Amino acid sequence: MKQETAEKWKSFLELLRKIASYHEAVSLMHWDLRTGAPRKGAEARSETIGLLSTEAFKLQTSTAMGEFLSYLNHQTVLGELDETGRRLVQLVQEEYDRSVKIPPAKFQEYAELTAHAETLWEDYKESGDFAGFEPYLTRIVALTQEFIDYWGPKETRYDTLLDMYEPDLTVEKLDQVFGKLRDRLVPVVDAITSAPHKPQAPFLNQLYDKEQQKKIGIFLLEQIGYDFEAGRVDETVHPFEITLNQGDVRITTHYVQDDVTNSIFSNLHEGGHALYEQNVSKELAGTPLSQGTSMGIHESQSRFWENFVGRSRDFWERYYGDLQQHFPEQLKDVTVDEFYRGINRVENSLIRIDADELTYNLHIIIRYEIEKMIFNEGLPVSELPKVWNEKYKAYLGLTPPNDSLGVLQDVHWSGGSFGYFPSYALGNMYAAQIANTLKNELPQFEGFIAEGNFAPIKEWLTEKIYKYGKSLKPAEIIMNVTGEELNPDYLADYLEQKYKGIYGL
Amino acid sequence: MKQETAEKWKSFLELLRKIASYHEAVSLMHWDLRTGAPRKGAEARSETIGLLSTEAFKLQTSTAMGEFLSYLNHQTVLGELDETGRRLVQLVQEEYDRSVKIPPAKFQEYAELTAHAETLWEDYKESGDFAGFEPYLTRIVALTQEFIDYWGPKETRYDTLLDMYEPDLTVEKLDQVFGKLRDRLVPVVDAITSAPHKPQAPFLNQLYDKEQQKKIGIFLLEQIGYDFEAGRVDETVHPFEITLNQGDVRITTHYVQDDVTNSIFSNLHEGGHALYEQNVSKELAGTPLSQGTSMGIHESQSRFWENFVGRSRDFWERYYGDLQQHFPEQLKDVTVDEFYRGINRVENSLIRIDADELTYNLHIIIRYEIEKMIFNEGLPVSELPKVWNEKYKAYLGLTPPNDSLGVLQDVHWSGGSFGYFPSYALGNMYAAQIANTLKNELPQFEGFIAEGNFAPIKEWLTEKIYKYGKSLKPAEIIMNVTGEELNPDYLADYLEQKYKGIYGL
Repeated sequence: MKQETAEKWKSFLELLRKIASYHEAVSLMHWDLRTGAPRKGAEARSETIGLLSTEAFKLQTSTAMGEFLSYLNHQTVLGELDETGRRLVQLVQEEYDRSVKIPPAKFQEYAELTAHAETLWEDYKESGDFAGFEPYLTRIVALTQEFIDYWGPKETRYDTLLDMYEPDLTVEKLDQVFGKLRDRLVPVVDAITSAPHKPQAPFLNQLYDKEQQKKIGIFLLEQIGYDFEAGRVDETVHPFEITLNQGDVRITTHYVQDDVTNSIFSNLHEGGHALYEQNVSKELAGTPLSQGTSMGIHESQSRFWENFVGRSRDFWERYYGDLQQHFPEQLKDVTVDEFYRGINRVENSLIRIDADELTYNLHIIIRYEIEKMIFNEGLPVSELPKVWNEKYKAYLGLTPPNDSLGVLQDVHWSGGSFGYFPSYALGNMYAAQIANTLKNELPQFEGFIAEGNFAPIKEWLTEKIYKYGKSLKPAEIIMNVTGEELNPDYLADYLEQKYKGIYGL
Repeated sequence: MKQETAEKWKSFLELLRKIASYHEAVSLMHWDLRTGAPRKGAEARSETIGLLSTEAFKLQTSTAMGEFLSYLNHQTVLGELDETGRRLVQLVQEEYDRSVKIPPAKFQEYAELTAHAETLWEDYKESGDFAGFEPYLTRIVALTQEFIDYWGPKETRYDTLLDMYEPDLTVEKLDQVFGKLRDRLVPVVDAITSAPHKPQAPFLNQLYDKEQQKKIGIFLLEQIGYDFEAGRVDETVHPFEITLNQGDVRITTHYVQDDVTNSIFSNLHEGGHALYEQNVSKELAGTPLSQGTSMGIHESQSRFWENFVGRSRDFWERYYGDLQQHFPEQLKDVTVDEFYRGINRVENSLIRIDADELTYNLHIIIRYEIEKMIFNEGLPVSELPKVWNEKYKAYLGLTPPNDSLGVLQDVHWSGGSFGYFPSYALGNMYAAQIANTLKNELPQFEGFIAEGNFAPIKEWLTEKIYKYGKSLKPAEIIMNVTGEELNPDYLADYLEQKYKGIYGL
């Protein structure tokens, strides 16, 4: 590397590190708001989040950043960098191009508003008061529409949002993939509906002590390899994973007294996200490459650990005894087979995060269609409860009795995360496709699970996916790992086979 | 106000609000490091704290700040402001003058080092490994010495540090006040040593369940008026109060299984700090006036609630029944009189935070003398354990068996807080002097305590002290409230009278 390049590169990395420090502070403030920050401090806190997010934004769009990029992003200079360096320049350039189009005052308003709305959402969800929440959501949508204009709409306005979470994903592609998936899953759902022997699991809904739920949750997280010296587990309304820095990858969970599986699977789910983040190569620390590559690939990992590992028969052959020890009264007369069938029963339900592996995708398709309506057809926010309830009736045959169990159930929109929901279904499809390759390359896969030996699985995923962070694009990951593009058939195959076994179809 | 002044004033307040947002973020990161942040993230976190503290520091010393101050701090312009406005300009000018002398790179090193050292201190305290901690402490002392040079030494080098925590306090004055206090207290300590009937309280050191300790702690905090919607209580090695913003004033406590009084009195102590911060006038929010005026006055409030309220006979006449209900087994045969005498027994001990009201001041004098030796006589850090142990032998007749129970016991030095310790003794003296006035003006004081009716007491303190925040200097507060300067006789009178009663002297 020439001396001039070496100096620019060092200063460029320092600037990125400074930006990362704002993100760490803002992430901690968000985490804190959701894990017990006092109510009366929330308004000033929102303002503080807005101010510091704006500072980070100013650095990302600063003249200094522009100058670094215009120096570094030249063929001859890129040739002096290694592959990771080139990826970093490319990614920062993309973010710069995107950010520089948003006026800082707009960005600050957006940051303050979404921080505030996320806090308010907890109350409005609790009371089911959509009308109270509507003005905030209306303003968030309006600002997002303005952002789309600043960025320039793609094929459709909503494509612009999709691309933020899953680079290069389009409405056209998603309509096709979701269509194919739906066509293959509907017959399975129908067959289950008319199956003669449906698993029943009233034992899952007895009273399960919260402290015992905590204990088994921590135990299972330790088992799959979540590093508690580089993370912690707290309780929130809506579980999430948040990375403060490479040695501080936190997750949260939600304890439901009469549903023991809720916290177990949310721990395995968020734990899957965390395994990804905890195992990104340390060399990428302090740069934007140091995180999962896309929301879809991220979700593939949470789903992999939650469903492909955590809802498998082998997993419970190994751990059901431990669970029984934590809840001897509740589970003494329940066999592992009954338990396995119980946690995999299919039921149309109102709440996305409680849905089974099969119907979950319908919850996503509903949100995807509503988001398309908002951004491509101008559906007003005031209409959301009505449209939401109609779609739940049409797709799942259910009508939410109130907005707490309907349109207010998810935190995403209050944080401005439009275009995020499809990642969940992508995650399912990626997970199945990756699991297929994993089983071919590690034929002992099921045996490892049955032994509680997750290290080889975690290592394989680290080598193939985790360590790269954002230095490979999602499409590259999928192609490198599985040898083909995203293919929804793997998920359909997996679900067909699994539910044939459980429902004796 | 002229239009030009009005515009400058608005921008000046916005700049102060931005600086406050950095302080809120940094405070939250400190709080988080001590309340369970994962170990592996601590190094990156320290760097982040350093980076953001440096940004705040740059704003405080920025050209923009210099220009605001040179405009506002003119006789004619000050005349356009109200009294609070003038105080704000004065305070910001003082902080500017102090900060502008420190090179930003030095400040950043100091911020990163102290953040890192505070985390390390927990480990070194645990293991008693002073040699391991020594290099960090040596560097902190060296940087502090450099800062003294930048600021310019006062009468002595240590005076410069004292002034930071208690404006206008000097070694000369403190030597006098501490001398007088010691002369009056030593005879009381001697009389107690030879008293025929000493209270015994083995019942305090049974096993007290932590969850029950938490419950009674929260109950008592609610009773004295700590607002849980504007704060929260967590567990740390060393209890503290920290203000994130006016609606977010947090405290921490430490539960000792075989000493029930430890968490109770640390809650009342930190709760006293918090009552001060929670009741500063809302009009001062977002400015540096929005906090307690000095460490000494702050400590007077923690001591007032801990000792003058919490260790009084009246308080336990009211609350002993509640305590017994939380610990029926442990306290069933203990009378309120035995309990009251038990919590007020005097014993020479090794640990400052566990010391009784009487000998506590000796712990402070030891630290005061050592800090003077470090900064005025160049005592090397490597000598600290030896000097510490010698002084404990001389003043309290005890030799720490290890450095965990000796020189490593307090967090202050690892955070660079040299000159802070004297505030604790000042707090005791201020508290006694203020309590004397309070009893004259609210003759029902003791009755209010016996009824558990703390609102009139909190209101009196709010009106006289809390609401002003930093808009009055400590000497003004004491003069306004009590009509005279700091006078150690009030503390001596109070302690004499109290211990004569308890020990039948």
